[in-house]
Order: sequence, then C-alpha cells, then structure tokens
Amino acid sequence: MDRLEEKTTSKEIIYEGRIIDLSIHQVALPNGKESKREIINHPGAVAVLAVNKEGKLILVKQYRKALEKSIAEIPAGKLEKGEDPKACAARELEEETGYRAGSLEKVMSFYTSPGFADEIVHLYEAKDLSQGKAGTDEDEFVELLEATLDEAVSMIRDETIHDAKTICAIQHYRLTEK
Amino acid sequence: MDRLEEKTTSKEIIYEGRIIDLSIHQVALPNGKESKREIINHPGAVAVLAVNKEGKLILVKQYRKALEKSIAEIPAGKLEKGEDPKACAARELEEETGYRAGSLEKVMSFYTSPGFADEIVHLYEAKDLSQGKAGTDEDEFVELLEATLDEAVSMIRDETIHDAKTICAIQHYRLTEK
Repeated sequence: MDRLEEKTTSKEIIYEGRIIDLSIHQVALPNGKESKREIINHPGAVAVLAVNKEGKLILVKQYRKALEKSIAEIPAGKLEKGEDPKACAARELEEETGYRAGSLEKVMSFYTSPGFADEIVHLYEAKDLSQGKAGTDEDEFVELLEATLDEAVSMIRDETIHDAKTICAIQHYRLTEK
Repeated sequence: MDRLEEKTTSKEIIYEGRIIDLSIHQVALPNGKESKREIINHPGAVAVLAVNKEGKLILVKQYRKALEKSIAEIPAGKLEKGEDPKACAARELEEETGYRAGSLEKVMSFYTSPGFADEIVHLYEAKDLSQGKAGTDEDEFVELLEATLDEAVSMIRDETIHDAKTICAIQHYRLTEK
C-alpha cells in the first residue's frame, strides 16, 4: 500500500507508435482530488560502458531528431520485444561500434524521465573488447568516437557530452577504476 | 552542416498537452531514404543536489504515475514558461523540502531521453541550506527523505534509487566532495 498512490479513474490512449505510446490518465490524488497525467510508455533500453585496450572510452555520435543535432553518447539502443537486456547490450555495442565484448557486467538500471515516461536504461560494462563487425540498423547512422577518460571528463564540463546515461557511465567509471 | 542530419520532410502534431507534446516527423536520412521519428517536446526541468548541515543528502519520495510506484529522487521540477532555471531550482527545493538555499551553483545540464524526447535537466548544487517553508503544488504530494552519502550509495546499489538525474547528482557529489 503506497500512501502517495495516484489511482487511475479513466484512461485515454492517444497514440500507439513504433517506439512510444502516449496515454492520458485521469487520476485520484491522495487527497481525493482529481488530476491528469500524460504518460509515455517505452520498451526500455540498454547502454554500454566500454573502454578499449588503449584505455579509451567508446562513444558514438548520432543525430537525435528530438534535439535537432548530433550528440556524443555511449553505445545504446532500445530493447526489442522480449529481448534479454544483456544480449541487447552485446548486439548494440557490436552494431554501433564494431567492438565485440568478451563479457558484459550489469552496472545499474535507471529511469530516465520518471515525470512522464517509463523508459528504463540498463547500463552494462563491457570487458575484453575485440574486433567484431559493425553494421547498424538500416535507418541508424552513427560515427565512432574514442576518448580518454580525461577527454571525456572535459567533454562533460563543456557540455559536448550532455546525456544523462553517458554521464552516469563515465562517473561510474571514474568512481570504480584505478 | 551536420553530416548525420535527418531533415524533416513532413510533420504531424498528434497531441499538445499540459506538459508534453507529441509529433511524428517523416525524415530524410543521410542516405536519402525515409524514416519516421516520434518526438516528445518537454519544457525542460531542474534538479537540486542539496546536502544539509548534518551532511545528509535531501531526497523526496514521490509517486510517479508512469512507473506506477513511488521512487526516491533529488528535488526536481519542470520549468514554467520563460522561467529562469536557477529561480526554478530555488523554488522547487523550497516547495518540495522546506529547505531554502543560501546559494545555488550550476553543476551541469543533460538530456534525459534523447532518443525520443528533448527534455533537458539543469542540475544545481544548493549551498548553505536554511529552514524555509514547504508547500507543494496542489496536485503534488511528496515525502522528505534524508540520507547519508553511504546510505545513498547503498540505495543506488540496491536500486532503491534508480533515477538517472539522482544518480548523476550523487556520483558528482562523491567525485567532488572530500
């Protein structure tokens, strides 16, 4: 029993799309009053912290239509229906960067925009990278970037990197690596 | 000129809401093919890293309808139209927690879900907290939580805290405080 719960009294589905769905919930608040919540449902995603044998962090530059610009991010991608997050992480890393992970360890999971969306990102750390075979989705265009940890920290400072999952991953790396 | 740019060839507005708007863009990809992008527009938000005189991190527990559960987050809120992010950070901290900041310093800004949304979060660090006056929005119910840094780190580890902006803030605090 959650004292803060907002119970749905009615729900309207506005849009069911390829990646996201939008619905409007009429909710009863804890004080009995009514309000409205706009909710995006998303299948979830994975992201991969990968550092190659030269100690360089693997990033990809990708055009983000929502931002109308390209930004640098760690390799990431959305989960296919029923897909295992770890398998998805291995697939996305290789497709986007050409690196194959010897092993993948779960770092953590986090919600990205809990105020309006249920998207969760599962962050993995890739170990023992070797050369695999790049080959992106037919409608995905990415450029590989490699950065030393110092460069990545500078990129956060000057907002060349300003993506939450990428910052979480880099800070995690700084906190755990020697 | 961005080589990765995806130019909109047509756009359909699906929904214009209280907080988010949804539109579908038909885009021309860099290889000339067409694809579709589902885009959420959001006014942006602020979040506040605040540690009180006892060294405790200030968190709030809030029901998130998108997740159908309450989660622990740093104080945060969306920007009102034309609102200065720093003024918004001061307002949200006091409204949600009853703490007033002596000063607020910008830490960084990050996009939360660049794959489908333009939401940006501006993270501030509050200094010199004093007692202010709590009083949340009429349709917002929050509970104050205070955690030592060790407790917050454990909460990330066991996924009691699994919100990207909150993790970014706690990691930043660990990396910068003595």
